[in-house]
Amino acid sequence: MIELDFAKGEHGLLPAIVQDSKSRDILMLAYINHEAWKKTLSTGKAHFWSRSRNKIWLKGESSGHVQLVKEIFVDCDQDTVVFTVEQLGGAACHKGYRSCFFRKVDKDELRLIGEKIFNPEDVYGK
Amino acid sequence: MIELDFAKGEHGLLPAIVQDSKSRDILMLAYINHEAWKKTLSTGKAHFWSRSRNKIWLKGESSGHVQLVKEIFVDCDQDTVVFTVEQLGGAACHKGYRSCFFRKVDKDELRLIGEKIFNPEDVYGK
Repeated sequence: MIELDFAKGEHGLLPAIVQDSKSRDILMLAYINHEAWKKTLSTGKAHFWSRSRNKIWLKGESSGHVQLVKEIFVDCDQDTVVFTVEQLGGAACHKGYRSCFFRKVDKDELRLIGEKIFNPEDVYGK
Repeated sequence: MIELDFAKGEHGLLPAIVQDSKSRDILMLAYINHEAWKKTLSTGKAHFWSRSRNKIWLKGESSGHVQLVKEIFVDCDQDTVVFTVEQLGGAACHKGYRSCFFRKVDKDELRLIGEKIFNPEDVYGK
């Protein structure tokens, strides 16, 4: 298995950038530990470490919006990765947008530029 | 000024993903603190916090490979940003590659896929 430099990350966590393999939009960033990395490699589905829930997280386990990993790139320092994915359900963000980066800096404001795909209440419940 | 949630990052640092504004290749990931964020916004050049040198870092200050920031996107949790940039000198990686993500996972190996633009010894000295 390819080893990453987990010792470099705080609490053994490294950032994983998720990019849509077709549109090349950056969809999200989440954190992986050694177990999430191993599971991503073995299953072909993006797994992360949830810092809020303190547990391994198969992306899409609640929403069904699983990320099928097409390619994985590793950076020069072996402490950051890029997953290029097919995003099932068409949306990566828990707020219902295609990408978590649905706002753009426009002078002193954040302007909404993202496309809303689903209503979070419909998917996660109220 | 747009405020980010620096309290969420370890040591007040948040990840900034750098994407080439034209090719849409992901070039690198580095960390920003409040000062690096402020300097990036005010100068239009990507600034980071160097975790190894423990100081503010104007990307390209040694190599001349400055990143001119075209757009900035902020994620749902306000704890990660994307800078889309024009990469001066054509290379973001200190190892001389266009992108830090110059290796791809290919079964149990890392396969070199990146383009080498410069020789680090020529740029940074021996």
